[in-house]
Amino acid sequence: MTNQLPEKMNIALLNEPYDIEIKEVDVPEIGPEDVLVKVMAVGVCGSDVHYYAHGSVGEFVVKEPLILGHECSGQVVAVGSEVTDFREGDRVAIEPGVPCGRCEHCREGKYNLCPDVVFLATPPVDGAFCQYLSHPADFLYHIPDELTYEQATLNEPFSVGIQACKRAQVKAGSTVVIMGMGPVGLMTVLAAKSFGATRIIVSDLEEKRLEEAKELGATHTINIKNDDVLERIEEITGGKGVDYAIETAGNPTALKNSISALKNGGTLAIVGLTQQDEVGFNAPWIANHELNIVGVFRYENTYEMGIDLLSNTTSDLDTMFTDFYDLEDTKEAMERTRTNKSGSIKVMVYPNGRPE
Amino acid sequence: MTNQLPEKMNIALLNEPYDIEIKEVDVPEIGPEDVLVKVMAVGVCGSDVHYYAHGSVGEFVVKEPLILGHECSGQVVAVGSEVTDFREGDRVAIEPGVPCGRCEHCREGKYNLCPDVVFLATPPVDGAFCQYLSHPADFLYHIPDELTYEQATLNEPFSVGIQACKRAQVKAGSTVVIMGMGPVGLMTVLAAKSFGATRIIVSDLEEKRLEEAKELGATHTINIKNDDVLERIEEITGGKGVDYAIETAGNPTALKNSISALKNGGTLAIVGLTQQDEVGFNAPWIANHELNIVGVFRYENTYEMGIDLLSNTTSDLDTMFTDFYDLEDTKEAMERTRTNKSGSIKVMVYPNGRPE
Amino acid sequence: MTNQLPEKMNIALLNEPYDIEIKEVDVPEIGPEDVLVKVMAVGVCGSDVHYYAHGSVGEFVVKEPLILGHECSGQVVAVGSEVTDFREGDRVAIEPGVPCGRCEHCREGKYNLCPDVVFLATPPVDGAFCQYLSHPADFLYHIPDELTYEQATLNEPFSVGIQACKRAQVKAGSTVVIMGMGPVGLMTVLAAKSFGATRIIVSDLEEKRLEEAKELGATHTINIKNDDVLERIEEITGGKGVDYAIETAGNPTALKNSISALKNGGTLAIVGLTQQDEVGFNAPWIANHELNIVGVFRYENTYEMGIDLLSNTTSDLDTMFTDFYDLEDTKEAMERTRTNKSGSIKVMVYPNGRPE
Amino acid sequence: MTNQLPEKMNIALLNEPYDIEIKEVDVPEIGPEDVLVKVMAVGVCGSDVHYYAHGSVGEFVVKEPLILGHECSGQVVAVGSEVTDFREGDRVAIEPGVPCGRCEHCREGKYNLCPDVVFLATPPVDGAFCQYLSHPADFLYHIPDELTYEQATLNEPFSVGIQACKRAQVKAGSTVVIMGMGPVGLMTVLAAKSFGATRIIVSDLEEKRLEEAKELGATHTINIKNDDVLERIEEITGGKGVDYAIETAGNPTALKNSISALKNGGTLAIVGLTQQDEVGFNAPWIANHELNIVGVFRYENTYEMGIDLLSNTTSDLDTMFTDFYDLEDTKEAMERTRTNKSGSIKVMVYPNGRPE
Repeated sequence: MTNQLPEKMNIALLNEPYDIEIKEVDVPEIGPEDVLVKVMAVGVCGSDVHYYAHGSVGEFVVKEPLILGHECSGQVVAVGSEVTDFREGDRVAIEPGVPCGRCEHCREGKYNLCPDVVFLATPPVDGAFCQYLSHPADFLYHIPDELTYEQATLNEPFSVGIQACKRAQVKAGSTVVIMGMGPVGLMTVLAAKSFGATRIIVSDLEEKRLEEAKELGATHTINIKNDDVLERIEEITGGKGVDYAIETAGNPTALKNSISALKNGGTLAIVGLTQQDEVGFNAPWIANHELNIVGVFRYENTYEMGIDLLSNTTSDLDTMFTDFYDLEDTKEAMERTRTNKSGSIKVMVYPNGRPE
Repeated sequence: MTNQLPEKMNIALLNEPYDIEIKEVDVPEIGPEDVLVKVMAVGVCGSDVHYYAHGSVGEFVVKEPLILGHECSGQVVAVGSEVTDFREGDRVAIEPGVPCGRCEHCREGKYNLCPDVVFLATPPVDGAFCQYLSHPADFLYHIPDELTYEQATLNEPFSVGIQACKRAQVKAGSTVVIMGMGPVGLMTVLAAKSFGATRIIVSDLEEKRLEEAKELGATHTINIKNDDVLERIEEITGGKGVDYAIETAGNPTALKNSISALKNGGTLAIVGLTQQDEVGFNAPWIANHELNIVGVFRYENTYEMGIDLLSNTTSDLDTMFTDFYDLEDTKEAMERTRTNKSGSIKVMVYPNGRPE
Repeated sequence: MTNQLPEKMNIALLNEPYDIEIKEVDVPEIGPEDVLVKVMAVGVCGSDVHYYAHGSVGEFVVKEPLILGHECSGQVVAVGSEVTDFREGDRVAIEPGVPCGRCEHCREGKYNLCPDVVFLATPPVDGAFCQYLSHPADFLYHIPDELTYEQATLNEPFSVGIQACKRAQVKAGSTVVIMGMGPVGLMTVLAAKSFGATRIIVSDLEEKRLEEAKELGATHTINIKNDDVLERIEEITGGKGVDYAIETAGNPTALKNSISALKNGGTLAIVGLTQQDEVGFNAPWIANHELNIVGVFRYENTYEMGIDLLSNTTSDLDTMFTDFYDLEDTKEAMERTRTNKSGSIKVMVYPNGRPE
Repeated sequence: MTNQLPEKMNIALLNEPYDIEIKEVDVPEIGPEDVLVKVMAVGVCGSDVHYYAHGSVGEFVVKEPLILGHECSGQVVAVGSEVTDFREGDRVAIEPGVPCGRCEHCREGKYNLCPDVVFLATPPVDGAFCQYLSHPADFLYHIPDELTYEQATLNEPFSVGIQACKRAQVKAGSTVVIMGMGPVGLMTVLAAKSFGATRIIVSDLEEKRLEEAKELGATHTINIKNDDVLERIEEITGGKGVDYAIETAGNPTALKNSISALKNGGTLAIVGLTQQDEVGFNAPWIANHELNIVGVFRYENTYEMGIDLLSNTTSDLDTMFTDFYDLEDTKEAMERTRTNKSGSIKVMVYPNGRPE
């Protein structure tokens, strides 16, 4: 029923910081509930670059050679014996984290908090800079015809933006400020727009990123090199403040400004991770204005919704993609992302060749 | 239909810090929707003592002589022409804050955030250390026979505890840690118990207050003079952490410990006001564990619920009351509260004489 | 500061069913917190026509001659002494219901349930088919330049749609079926779209209304004259059912179908009022699939949000308006609405003359 | 490490309606994540009796001989190789439904809606009227010393009551009416009390059950043989109506009364299954008063919470148990439950002998 499967494949292996090796290995085997996916597109994430340059992200340390990459999509080439929802040739988005399904958090629907999650490209679990990936069918999602493989990879950072909006309970007709216009910040603009926010204010110091934010739905941009964020927010909101602030950059000043920008009863969602552990929060202000602060960690139950929203957006998603590499050039893709923050937005790697 | 009303009454007036004068003034007039209440019992609040000793609380400054006291109950002696729910002789609890009813916050049911609220004993509005008080009927509540006037005054700090539990969304069967066992902390114990929490851990450094907490429903006490809070919480919860932490003391260390004590997805409610504006919060920890932080400011829609819960509690409320004064001795009541933190819990003033 | 105000004005008065008289009366006086509005556009609502034809709607009976009309907007011509947010010349949308602000429901933010609400064109309160209206400033909203007076009147039926989506908690990326494409149903399409629903299925038996629904954002239409609603929904959703059903027509069969169309855990919002009191609901089905049913009555806290959403929609609102009348022809406007259900959508009356 | 395990055990097998056979079979084997439990106590549920008498419940039909019983607790006698949370001798409550952990509903935390759930005593899955049961460790819960085995079996019907209170969002200080005082209704009284409801009104036609309801926490009882439910509720609530109504009997009249008894914005939870599919609901009333109706199906995430609440209740749980049988007398236990509705409340079966 299935074509002859390949036996060997290429992978891009991080041996140690700055050392990526292209290697041939066996194509992985699949279990009865798994699907073998030919990886068609992978977006480079900031965390990939961080592992590449430092060998660790927070408590996660690369101890053995590791395949990076977790923003990915592909085509089904084989399915396990129990799989009924997919068949050869299907185009699929890949949810990179597979939780245990049994712990307290999983049972309560908060599977992003599962302590036993297996997550692509988080050591010691290999990622998607490879030609074929075995993945549980339950964490694959059909890509509709309207979406390209590249666009489908955006569903990963978009999921973080959706999670932020879910956690903050962003409502239709509301005003949101989003601090930091890296890819997650940009995808959060799209999420806020999808949730019906009518005023989306964004801040960053790169003009190119602010332009991209506008493309995706931002209604007001603040370049923090030139303008005072709080003053501008006061102007834009007529002194009322914002309903929601979402900080995606891990910048302590942005976090403090976020709290100051909120109206009474408003909500801050913390997405970005600050390097330092302690950030000075104005605690009496939080109490006196009944503010809310919510942490955001990855996402749960966002993938199907995300695919739907991406398929229906009126924004032009392709403006996100700025650089394109073959698997053999994964190191260059890393370097490009690392060194060209003012020019590149999303850098793509094509493990099975760039589309023509 | 009504008896002859008194024309004059005594008040305890704060002229300036540490200077309280007993004075005779006219009994206030009532409008068509107001009720004249003979004040039967008033609890001394920490904020009363702060105004008494410092002349201000935060941004609120006593500029003209002021009557303090806002935890109060009394008996109806006259009703305005439009009042239908009350009549002479009714025993009533007094909700001290009267919001505008028209602003954005009022319309959304968050009337505690009303910028135009009129709140007893918050300058320039006079409070309840007086014999008679005119108050809108809409903010009076019938006291059932089961509750004494003294017990009804507890509904004010209890309302803060209820608001904290509402904001934190405390659930039945949950584990709560409450930091700081001043009167608000103690009433929060009662609130958490009323909301169905089955494990209520409390911390303080005064043994007497920890004992009182047990009386009201605490299941575990931690004396921070002797024990490490986080270690004890880990012991008590088998390493799982708590569902909710409620900080009522305004202590920066307690706030930080509160965050560390939470389980994944847990919630901190900030009730106490720290003296310093900036408290170092572990921002990446909040994000990575999807914690929630909610500010608590006074209360809304708690008074009727509070009266109901107080009437139905199995805890002995009278253990809260430790000192008793006539209106003439209001200054002594203030001094007692100010100087006897390890011995006194709730100090009462009786504007119309102590009950026999 | 203000121009000379007019002293007399014309009104369209319903004396008894089918008898509308144009009469000259005094321009109303305004209190200190009121605004005098020159009424520029009024949409005819189904309830207006019901009063016109039957003299009553449910328990509300027209006993004295009554001015109808409550979907209205206009221009400020004078403001009361306490009004600061508006001045002469401002363009305003008028929220027709003014609640007491003090009862239990008002305090909890559910002011649509206020038993003492004063609502335009609900006997014995006069409505907006008149040249000038006195209205409390708190229930007026600035119209931004992007919206015409006609478009602003849509905020009234749109508010019902928003309330339905709020009550049903419509989420981004969800699938909604809306039964009945009268003006409220159509505005509910716009509301569902504004809330981020990506699949909006609608049903009606008038082709013109289904066309208009598509204009506003419906993704799938079902003409119940030709198709089986449940079969079509099964087809469209791949057998999964819908997340939300909103019934706006008051049709018992549509209500039953709505329940059958829901997926596990789905929600039905009841907006339309059936003529009969009892509708056969499949109770064990509701239990076994943990369905939710929510009633929707008018709206609360929707007006500002609605104006924002109308100003930001990508749908063409003007396709809603099909017929246009001067105040003198109010009876014709009523008759047109009553008799031309397959051709007219929203019929407009201009108390101060039709725009050129 | 473990004692010699028994090889054979007795079971009570329903061959066909009214025919229960005691049989000897092999003790089940356990997988690596399972636990072998010596069944110490089983409560007889109405559904057990329905299968016993009719061979089916709704769509579930007994086609092969079946072991009934799903309200059960026991002692661990062996654990699978991967199990770390339990060891021989542990006392455990058994959550009878084991969901797939992977479907949409499981991932969202609503595992009670899982279409692939495996549920004890629901054909074709065998239940607990047997001496030993193999069950996944993830669905076992430690019983604290305060609870007996019998009391722990109550956690199953109690979980239904908790689910009803969760779904209805029962709040502290609220008024609840619970219709039908069968075991589920009675356990719902305990749940409502645990959630902090201060006024719990119950109705039934058996005086004994109303007495038991009082024992568990009901504050007002209505015997529908003597009194008009709606009149009594009006009396008790001073005409305000109840916040929540929970119907547990599957009685159409009780369902209709429940809706009429609600205050504006109130919520009905449907727990009981009516025999007929269609119940006449007053749809315009639901809309006009913004009522909520929620279905309740089994439960999710209630077991740990339930054990906690049972351990902390001040109610005397043992008053629930009225009849006691050995496994050999399972048929008598069924008959007793079936025929003695006015005298028996909870009938217990002891597969490994009655305690002395």
